[in-house]
Amino acid sequence: MFDSANLDHTIDKDTWNREAPRLREALLNAQYDLAQSKRFPVVVVIGGVEGAGKSETVNLLSEWMDPRHLLVQAFPDATDEERERPRMWRYWRALPPRGRVGILFGAWHSQPILQRVLERTSEAELDQHIAGIQRFERMLCDEGALLLKFWFHLTKKQQRKRLRALAADPRTAWHVTERERKYARLYDRFASAAEHLTRATSTGEAPWIVVSGQCDRYRDLTVARTLLAAMRERLDEAPVERFADRNPPLLPPADGLNVVRALHLAQPMTRATYDKDLGRLQGRLAALSRDRRFARAAVVAVFEGNDAAGKGGAIRRVTGALDARLYQGVSVAAPTEEERAQPYLWRFWRHLPRRGRVVIFDRSWYGRVLVERVEGFCREPDWMRAYGEINDFEKQMADSGVVVAKFWLAIDADQQLERFKAREETAFKRFKITAEDWRNREKWDAYEVAVCDMIDRTSTPLAPWTLVEANNKYHARVKVLRTLVKAVEDAFDAM
Amino acid sequence: MFDSANLDHTIDKDTWNREAPRLREALLNAQYDLAQSKRFPVVVVIGGVEGAGKSETVNLLSEWMDPRHLLVQAFPDATDEERERPRMWRYWRALPPRGRVGILFGAWHSQPILQRVLERTSEAELDQHIAGIQRFERMLCDEGALLLKFWFHLTKKQQRKRLRALAADPRTAWHVTERERKYARLYDRFASAAEHLTRATSTGEAPWIVVSGQCDRYRDLTVARTLLAAMRERLDEAPVERFADRNPPLLPPADGLNVVRALHLAQPMTRATYDKDLGRLQGRLAALSRDRRFARAAVVAVFEGNDAAGKGGAIRRVTGALDARLYQGVSVAAPTEEERAQPYLWRFWRHLPRRGRVVIFDRSWYGRVLVERVEGFCREPDWMRAYGEINDFEKQMADSGVVVAKFWLAIDADQQLERFKAREETAFKRFKITAEDWRNREKWDAYEVAVCDMIDRTSTPLAPWTLVEANNKYHARVKVLRTLVKAVEDAFDAM
Repeated sequence: MFDSANLDHTIDKDTWNREAPRLREALLNAQYDLAQSKRFPVVVVIGGVEGAGKSETVNLLSEWMDPRHLLVQAFPDATDEERERPRMWRYWRALPPRGRVGILFGAWHSQPILQRVLERTSEAELDQHIAGIQRFERMLCDEGALLLKFWFHLTKKQQRKRLRALAADPRTAWHVTERERKYARLYDRFASAAEHLTRATSTGEAPWIVVSGQCDRYRDLTVARTLLAAMRERLDEAPVERFADRNPPLLPPADGLNVVRALHLAQPMTRATYDKDLGRLQGRLAALSRDRRFARAAVVAVFEGNDAAGKGGAIRRVTGALDARLYQGVSVAAPTEEERAQPYLWRFWRHLPRRGRVVIFDRSWYGRVLVERVEGFCREPDWMRAYGEINDFEKQMADSGVVVAKFWLAIDADQQLERFKAREETAFKRFKITAEDWRNREKWDAYEVAVCDMIDRTSTPLAPWTLVEANNKYHARVKVLRTLVKAVEDAFDAM
Repeated sequence: MFDSANLDHTIDKDTWNREAPRLREALLNAQYDLAQSKRFPVVVVIGGVEGAGKSETVNLLSEWMDPRHLLVQAFPDATDEERERPRMWRYWRALPPRGRVGILFGAWHSQPILQRVLERTSEAELDQHIAGIQRFERMLCDEGALLLKFWFHLTKKQQRKRLRALAADPRTAWHVTERERKYARLYDRFASAAEHLTRATSTGEAPWIVVSGQCDRYRDLTVARTLLAAMRERLDEAPVERFADRNPPLLPPADGLNVVRALHLAQPMTRATYDKDLGRLQGRLAALSRDRRFARAAVVAVFEGNDAAGKGGAIRRVTGALDARLYQGVSVAAPTEEERAQPYLWRFWRHLPRRGRVVIFDRSWYGRVLVERVEGFCREPDWMRAYGEINDFEKQMADSGVVVAKFWLAIDADQQLERFKAREETAFKRFKITAEDWRNREKWDAYEVAVCDMIDRTSTPLAPWTLVEANNKYHARVKVLRTLVKAVEDAFDAM
C-alpha cells in the first residue's frame, strides 16, 4: 500500500508557483458548481502518521476554498456527549450536506488503528471494526457521496527527521508532545495496522490515496489535484445506461399467511384489569428510570403501526411514567431540507439519546421500508439495502448500551374503519384524520407485505420487534409497557 | 429473520394442482430465454435445517427444468482435491456459466455455521467468515450473477416431528442418521448461528429468502415462484440511467517519481557470477521441492513485466530446477468462451495448485488492472474493484498455505527497443514480436501508471510484489530465483 509513498517525492518551488494559483481557481470553481447543483456531498477524510502534515494541508485547503461551502472537522478526544453514544455518532453529525465539501481530519479509521497498536483489541476485533467501516462507507457511496480518503505517509526515517525539525523550531515545537514521541517509537506497529486497514477499506468507490508527506509542496499538490479531478469528473459526468436494478423481488408467502395475519387482534381486557396493570407497570417503569443502573443505559423506543392503531395513546402511557427531563419524543414527518441533504439515516442518528435518557420515536427510520417502499418514494435498490443498514444502525445502538424496543401496533381493516369514522365525528379528533389516511387504507395489502418483510428482516435478538394486537387499546398499552419494563430489567440483569 | 417462517404455512392440494403445471411451463420458458440470451448466470443457493426438505425441492426443480441448462451441485465432505486448496475453491468450480441455472445445495454458508455450532470457531471468527462471504457474494453480483439464496426453516417442534416421520417410514428412514439426530439436539445453537449469518449476509442484491419447510407444497411453490419472478424480472428488464461511474480517478504522482522509475534497471552481473549463482540457487530450490515440508505447502509464482523483459527466460530458470511432475506452467492469453461466461477470477481459480505443487503464471489475473485498464477492455468500476478482489483471492491462497510470489520484470524503453529489433533480426525469435508489441510500446506511460497503481494496491505482506530490474537478464534471473527460494524457506520456518 505504501510502496509509492516510500519514494523520495518532491515538487520544486517553480512548479508549485506555476500550479498553485491555477489549482486554487479551479477548486473554487468546482466548489461553486457543486454548491449550485447540490447534487452530492464531498467527504474528504485525512488520515496518516504523526508529523506528515495533516493539519498543514487542511489549513491550505481552508485558505484556498470558499469557507461558506466548506466544513472542517477534527476529532480529538471524544466529548462526554460523544462518549455516551454509539462510536459512529460523532462522524454522522460531522457529515457535510449535499452541495458542500467536508474535510474530516482523523476520522473513523483512527481509533481502530490506535486501539490495535496499543494492543487493546485483537486482530479479529480490528477486522470487525474494518467490516463496520466497509459497511458505513458503502452506505455513504450508495447515498451518493463522493468519498475521498487521503493517507499521509512517512517512512520511519522521514518521520524521525520531521519530528526533530518540528521540535527544534520554536514556532512548531508545541506540535511534538510526549504523545507524538511515543507513537513515533511504535512506528512499525502503526505501519502494520494502517497497512491492513487501508488495504481492506480501499474499494473501487472509496480507495485510499496514499500521499508521501515528506515534501510539503508534493503533498499539497497531490491532495489538491486529486480533489479537483474527482469533483470535476463527478460534476461533469452524464448519466450512463446500466443493468436495471439487481434486486430479486421479495414475494409474499404463497399461502397468504403472514406474521400480521397470524395475530389475534382482538385480545380481551377489561377496564378494571387495565387500570390495575397500567398503574403497576407505570410504577415499575418509573422505579427503573430512577435506578442507579439507568445512568449506564439508554432507551430507544420505536412506535410503528397501522393508521389509527393507537400509537399516540400507547406512547402517552409510557411517557406518563417518566420524568419529563428524562425523555424526548420525536414525531417523524417529512424530512426537512437540511435532512434531505444527508444520507437517509442521518436524521435519526441526530436524535439518539445520551446515557440515562429515553427517546421515543413516533414513526421512525422504518418509513423507508414502509411508506417509501409502498408509495415508490425511493427506488427498490435503496429500500432493499435499507434492511441491512437499519440492522447495522440498531446494532451500534445496542452495542453502546441502548435498549432498543420496537412496537408494531396492528389493527384490522374493520377496526380501522370504525376509528376513522369516529374521528370524523368527534370535533377534537378531526385533525387526526386526513384524505391521506383514506388513501393509505386503499393500499392495505401492499402495506401488509411491507410490514411482514420489515419484521422478518429487522427483528433481531438485540433489537426485536414486538407485535402488539391493538384492536383493544387496553391490551395494546399494557403489552407495550410490559415489554418495555421487561427489556430494561433484562438490560439491568446483564450489567 | 425467521418470524414469518415460524408460522404454520400450508398450501392445499387443489392450489398446488392448479399452480404447478403453470409454474413448470413458465420456468422452462425462462430457462430457454436465459440460455438463448446468455446474459447472466443464475446461482441458486439452498441452505437450511435438517429435515426441511432441501433435497426434495432440488429434486423437484431438477425434474421440472431442462437438465441441459441446469447444474446441480451438492457439497458433501470435501474431497482430497478440495481440502488441499483454499476453502472457496470448490464453490468457484461449481459456479454456473452465463445462460445457465446452477443449484448449489449447502454452499459456502454451511461450514461457517456448523463450525460455530460445534464451537470450533469463536464469534469473531464467524464474523470474519461472514465478511469473506459478503465480499464473495458482492463480487458475484458485480459480475452480473443473479444470486438467489433460500433458507429452509423449521421450528424446533416441527423439526422433531419431521425427523420422527422420516425415521418411521422405511422408504425415508435412511435420511435420519446419528448425525441428523445430533444436529437436531443442537437446534437452538444452529438457529442462533444461522440467524446471525443469514441476517448479516442478506443484502439488497442477495437477500436470503426464508422458507418454511413444514409443508412440502408451500415450500416448493415458494421456491419455484421466487425463482421464476427473479429470472423474469432480470430477463425482461430494460437498462436504466444511473449516476455514471462512482470511482474517483487515480492520478499519477505529482512529481513524476514512481516505483518503476525509482528502479536502477541496469544492475551489473557478469556471466561467471551468474553461472555460479544460478547453479547454487537452482540446487537449493530443487532441494526445497524435495523437502518433506513441501508436501504441506504449494507455490504460486506470477510473472508480469514489460514486453521483452525476459519473463520466459526467468521462468525457464525456475522450472529448470523442478521435477516436471511437480509444476504446471499457465500461459495466460485471451480467455476461452467457457471462461468468458464466468466471473473474472474464475479462470485463475481453476489452475490453483494442490499441496506440494507449483503453478507458474506467465501473465495472470493482473491483466485486469494492466492491459484491460489501459486498453479500455473493462470499465473503470470493474478494474477499480479488482484490486480488492485480487487481494482477497491471494489472501485465501496464502491462508491455505500457498506461497504467493509475484514478479514484475522491468526494463526501460531503450532496452525494449533494442530487444524488439534483435527479435526481428533473429529468425527463431521473430514469432515473439508482433504489431501489438509495437502498439503497446506507444502506450508506455499509461502502462507505467497502471503498473505503479497495481504495485501500491496489491503488494501485501502475504503476497508481496518483487520488482526485478531486468535490463541485465542475468541479474533478473538470479533475483527471481533468490526471492523464490527465500519465500519457500520462510514458509518452512513458519511451519
